[in-house]
Amino acid sequence: MKFKFFVPTKIFFGRGSLNEMHKRGLPGKKALIVISSGKSVRVNGYLARVEEQLDKAGIGHVIFDKVKPNPRSVDIEEGARFARENGCDVVVGLGGGSSIDSAKLIALLATNEGSLWDYAIGGTGKRTMAKSKALPIIAIPTTAGTGTEADQWGVATNEQNEKIGMGNDDTYPTIAIVDPDLMMTVPPKLTAYQGFDALFHATEGYISTYSNFNSQIYSLKAIEHIAKGLAAAVNDGSNAQAREDVALGSTLAGIVEALTLLAGNHGLEHALSAYHPDLPHGAGLIMMSVAYYKMFADLGACDEKMINMAKAMGVKDATKAMDFVDALAKLIEDCGVADLKMSDYGITPDRFEEYVDNAFKTNIFTLNADPAKISKEQRIQILKDSYK
Amino acid sequence: MKFKFFVPTKIFFGRGSLNEMHKRGLPGKKALIVISSGKSVRVNGYLARVEEQLDKAGIGHVIFDKVKPNPRSVDIEEGARFARENGCDVVVGLGGGSSIDSAKLIALLATNEGSLWDYAIGGTGKRTMAKSKALPIIAIPTTAGTGTEADQWGVATNEQNEKIGMGNDDTYPTIAIVDPDLMMTVPPKLTAYQGFDALFHATEGYISTYSNFNSQIYSLKAIEHIAKGLAAAVNDGSNAQAREDVALGSTLAGIVEALTLLAGNHGLEHALSAYHPDLPHGAGLIMMSVAYYKMFADLGACDEKMINMAKAMGVKDATKAMDFVDALAKLIEDCGVADLKMSDYGITPDRFEEYVDNAFKTNIFTLNADPAKISKEQRIQILKDSYK
Repeated sequence: MKFKFFVPTKIFFGRGSLNEMHKRGLPGKKALIVISSGKSVRVNGYLARVEEQLDKAGIGHVIFDKVKPNPRSVDIEEGARFARENGCDVVVGLGGGSSIDSAKLIALLATNEGSLWDYAIGGTGKRTMAKSKALPIIAIPTTAGTGTEADQWGVATNEQNEKIGMGNDDTYPTIAIVDPDLMMTVPPKLTAYQGFDALFHATEGYISTYSNFNSQIYSLKAIEHIAKGLAAAVNDGSNAQAREDVALGSTLAGIVEALTLLAGNHGLEHALSAYHPDLPHGAGLIMMSVAYYKMFADLGACDEKMINMAKAMGVKDATKAMDFVDALAKLIEDCGVADLKMSDYGITPDRFEEYVDNAFKTNIFTLNADPAKISKEQRIQILKDSYK
Repeated sequence: MKFKFFVPTKIFFGRGSLNEMHKRGLPGKKALIVISSGKSVRVNGYLARVEEQLDKAGIGHVIFDKVKPNPRSVDIEEGARFARENGCDVVVGLGGGSSIDSAKLIALLATNEGSLWDYAIGGTGKRTMAKSKALPIIAIPTTAGTGTEADQWGVATNEQNEKIGMGNDDTYPTIAIVDPDLMMTVPPKLTAYQGFDALFHATEGYISTYSNFNSQIYSLKAIEHIAKGLAAAVNDGSNAQAREDVALGSTLAGIVEALTLLAGNHGLEHALSAYHPDLPHGAGLIMMSVAYYKMFADLGACDEKMINMAKAMGVKDATKAMDFVDALAKLIEDCGVADLKMSDYGITPDRFEEYVDNAFKTNIFTLNADPAKISKEQRIQILKDSYK
């Protein structure tokens, strides 16, 4: 047995934890608060509450509110310039995965020269090592899905439809405040998309060839809590216990992302949403997931792991890999997202080969982490089997 | 559910991992290597191998070899002066718990003024907050027991028989290299003492009122691996699989120490070995352990936790708290340490009250973490029940 364990983020989990944020020894004197261009963190009062916490801690703050879903490299570059111009020495990411991912990459680029793609390690990225430490990062998720509050990765898309994760030892958040109360207002569909994203961090991390002793522990715990709470959280957003379960599962799955590499469903989905930025990442994953896991069940690539995952999902008497695939299909049904259609997002079968080629170019690491080596044709087949 | 998760150490676990140490992005330009005043790390070649790894990484090094079992504050103060005089900017702890604990406290005191007890938070300690960050620390355990490679604590004893743990966010090792191959030469008795120390980090952390979601996960995994491997490692030190299991359990139990507070058996043992520095910490814990856990079993203080611990020890059909106490007594028997006698170490019943008073003064935090509030008389009773 060999493993590397590295999860340096100080995570404060619990309902009401945002109210205590000012006591947490926050780094920095002036914060860049990164939020999305949408309205939710203002309307729900979360932005004002974070500003109040920073005030209490004696930390100044300015706001950068240009983050789009599926963050774009140009916006991150603008954010980094804005951070430098304002003398910020800490970056706060408040919101969903796109805000926190953007905060991480802004923190990296604020102290390092050049463009974001100089530091990307796939596609046309220049694979440069950052010379300077990123600014410290504080992550405050308002959705349960990304897990980015516990890992080093920020995902961005450039103008060539390359969607790639980037990060290093300094882009783990210094502090994460995970307060399930901030997630109560997420609408049902988004709750489902995000919750499945979290589930797939746990499941892909588990079947990944890079999985290891610690990541496997966190995968199974994450699957257990997400499977327990997700349908309830989708069907009644005011169910605080269900929200807490999904939030916990999401953060645990973030630890999985820190400890191992995800596999090919994420790799291929990144290609889809790089071309179709209106496709929510979680929705793209859901669409392909049953065909993706069925592929490896049919290949007998990781039967024992599939059985363990089925058990973590509550199928106590699971005995075969397909038990997991069936449990997954049932959860998708129970969460009301079984009718997602690629065609609704402009995805057409004539471009399947292009998506797969893009995934090979930009996300080869995750494709190679699949539990069995599958061909380009087999990946296209997953898309065909998933298409409606 | 509320928890704080913080385990910032980058841990490289696995047989042969010392050989790869130079590739791990080691901090610093000049290392103070802290080893014990004994001979084992020299005789076994571990010191030379660490020096070679530092050479390969281009890091200079000097040696401080004055650490005693149960480290003394005066030696740590001397080590800190030595580090400053030699311009060291990183401290390597190589050896058992006393070497690594000393390395941590030297790293703290090398950058902060005053004496060690200025920073102690119990007894006559002045409870000062360190003003400067400690030097970065690299931990390389050669024993499986302490878990200090994964936590922030260093334990030292002053001239007033106060044995106290100290540490802060900077005294987590930056890097830990946990190579079970370095533990193959530990003699049977020490293997047992150290292995039980690890076991009790896991079990006390588990029944502690500070235990939480993450610490409980690690406690049960640690108990499982230690119970699986310890008797085999004691009875045949060349059993590499058993050594690996115990090393893994020990590091996982170190993560428990990072995530929660231990309870009263550690608190009381620190008092014993403060007065009797020849008493190995693990031996002191073993002597009192059956009476200690039986006390809480009798009180029904944490029955479900006791049952879970019994199951983790392999008692699949455990149904009551005493199942854990019985499994513990059996493991002590199987490891050949059931005949440990307090009287062999100069411990006499007429001083029991003094030991308990000392524990209350120096380690009140751990005593308060016990799963039920017990009186001074009950603590003396634990000592009486354990005496032979």
